[in-house]
Amino acid sequence: MEIGERKLIEIVKRFERKKSGLIRGIGDDCAIVKLNGSLYAFCQDAIIEGVHFSFSFMSPPQVGKKAIYVNLADILSMGAKPLFYQVTLGIPKRITSDVIKGIYRGMGSVAEEFDIYLIGGDTVATGEDFFIDVSMVGKLICKEYKGRNSAKDNDLIGVTGWLGESAYGLKLLKDGIVLGKNYKRFVKRYREPRPPYEIWRELMKNDITNAMMDISDGLIIDLERMMEESGKGAVVYYEKLPIPFQLKKEKLEDYALSGGEDYQFLFTFSRDKLEKIEDLKKKGFEISVIGEVVRGKGVKVIKEGKPFLPVKKGYEHFSQ
Amino acid sequence: MEIGERKLIEIVKRFERKKSGLIRGIGDDCAIVKLNGSLYAFCQDAIIEGVHFSFSFMSPPQVGKKAIYVNLADILSMGAKPLFYQVTLGIPKRITSDVIKGIYRGMGSVAEEFDIYLIGGDTVATGEDFFIDVSMVGKLICKEYKGRNSAKDNDLIGVTGWLGESAYGLKLLKDGIVLGKNYKRFVKRYREPRPPYEIWRELMKNDITNAMMDISDGLIIDLERMMEESGKGAVVYYEKLPIPFQLKKEKLEDYALSGGEDYQFLFTFSRDKLEKIEDLKKKGFEISVIGEVVRGKGVKVIKEGKPFLPVKKGYEHFSQ
Repeated sequence: MEIGERKLIEIVKRFERKKSGLIRGIGDDCAIVKLNGSLYAFCQDAIIEGVHFSFSFMSPPQVGKKAIYVNLADILSMGAKPLFYQVTLGIPKRITSDVIKGIYRGMGSVAEEFDIYLIGGDTVATGEDFFIDVSMVGKLICKEYKGRNSAKDNDLIGVTGWLGESAYGLKLLKDGIVLGKNYKRFVKRYREPRPPYEIWRELMKNDITNAMMDISDGLIIDLERMMEESGKGAVVYYEKLPIPFQLKKEKLEDYALSGGEDYQFLFTFSRDKLEKIEDLKKKGFEISVIGEVVRGKGVKVIKEGKPFLPVKKGYEHFSQ
Repeated sequence: MEIGERKLIEIVKRFERKKSGLIRGIGDDCAIVKLNGSLYAFCQDAIIEGVHFSFSFMSPPQVGKKAIYVNLADILSMGAKPLFYQVTLGIPKRITSDVIKGIYRGMGSVAEEFDIYLIGGDTVATGEDFFIDVSMVGKLICKEYKGRNSAKDNDLIGVTGWLGESAYGLKLLKDGIVLGKNYKRFVKRYREPRPPYEIWRELMKNDITNAMMDISDGLIIDLERMMEESGKGAVVYYEKLPIPFQLKKEKLEDYALSGGEDYQFLFTFSRDKLEKIEDLKKKGFEISVIGEVVRGKGVKVIKEGKPFLPVKKGYEHFSQ
């Protein structure tokens, strides 16, 4: 298609009709709707063979898990507890019933772990493409929804886990390197991008975050989106980024800035919560404070005290 | 794929986990979930180019409308008022942005008519197939949900509108016949299968129906599904079927039994509501009483007092 994702969202937004029950609409990880006095989060995210996964690198259960993980990450990042989901499978002739069973098995295992359940969906025959489109519903567990538009001036910026792991895992698989204990972790992170639920729970319990989103397309591009929705700018300190040693060694630090598919949480928080964050870090939760929210717009990266321009910001659909 | 739709539903059902809030799960037009004390209907239905629509026969806005109509019919048939929806578009390179805009325009016009709103979704690049996957949420407006499993012994069976119109419309388009006032109605019914909302509203207002579903795959196959879910059998009187004169003239009565995509409502109702149905018919609402619910299983068609075997029961996905 000749238009970019941004342009597409603009088209979609033109057909959005504002309604009283709609608390947050298009442009965030989830929509937030008030139903019977309570707030619920709704998302719908698809994965396509050849774009988001390949059976050369992932087993059917892993593909099923990924379809659920990407939606779980969206629900969690709004500050909601996931409840249930629907699945549409688009199935070309070449896909066997064993593959389908494997995919449902993978989805089922994540559903069991996160105590969510499948309520329905659709199965359709396609000509060529295999796709899994999941819609998920969650219930807000905090007073106000988190989301991309709640970053405040002077907030600090945090990120969970490590960056670039998934992209590096994919590179290893493409290069045919899958063995060795130094590599295993990255390959697993690519194959099973489970959102860091345990850290999320601590962040929620202590009501630490203002804005929050999951990193799906790359740190820089996703942080830019968050700042744009919040009407703010951000400064990121390169030296504070959680870049795995392995990536540094191989001079693949770019992956951490623009790799995408990490499904870690990116969030902002008020400085008076910094102590809480330090507490969590001491307890072993992997959180890095990587920068701060400022007036203005865009994302500036500072490396060795000087402005630094990332080679690539992240993955944009339809940008080729 | 080498497995049938029935088999697929069995696989899916194995991974269904029963939860207290889930009032009705997989196997109906919608799932019914209790949220905060109220009942909501959830469905997700996709349409694929080449399977459910073709740009040779439908404009982009008509394709957009159809994607919404098929989900609207599901929500309505559970006895719920549609509230909002999400859309995932799978877009191959050959699709232009004008087509996408047309599709959103079509979806938007139906949304406006039915007072529902778009809250989000996804757009993904595909290799070849173009698909639209819509999930929709509605709120129940009756005490108990309608659905396929509520047919009672001795109920009468009703159907709205005319049968076989959509299939005949498609045939006309394939044969290159689109003009002439005798044909227009069928072509329109194929291109814009708007569910008969006005009749539905009367049925709801008077609390007439027990079981209810929309006819998507063909009268006989869908009635069989309803009877199976209800644990009953059905007898249908051929002479009472609303078969358009045009179809009789062309000896295409089969279309009425197995044509599919009519998106009319099929329902059962207690005999003491027959007077209400007759009232509605007098007021001009197109309803036909076509048979009755009996003990046993399966669907028997009676023609001229004798059992009649339809050539085909309807459309089964993956049955080729």
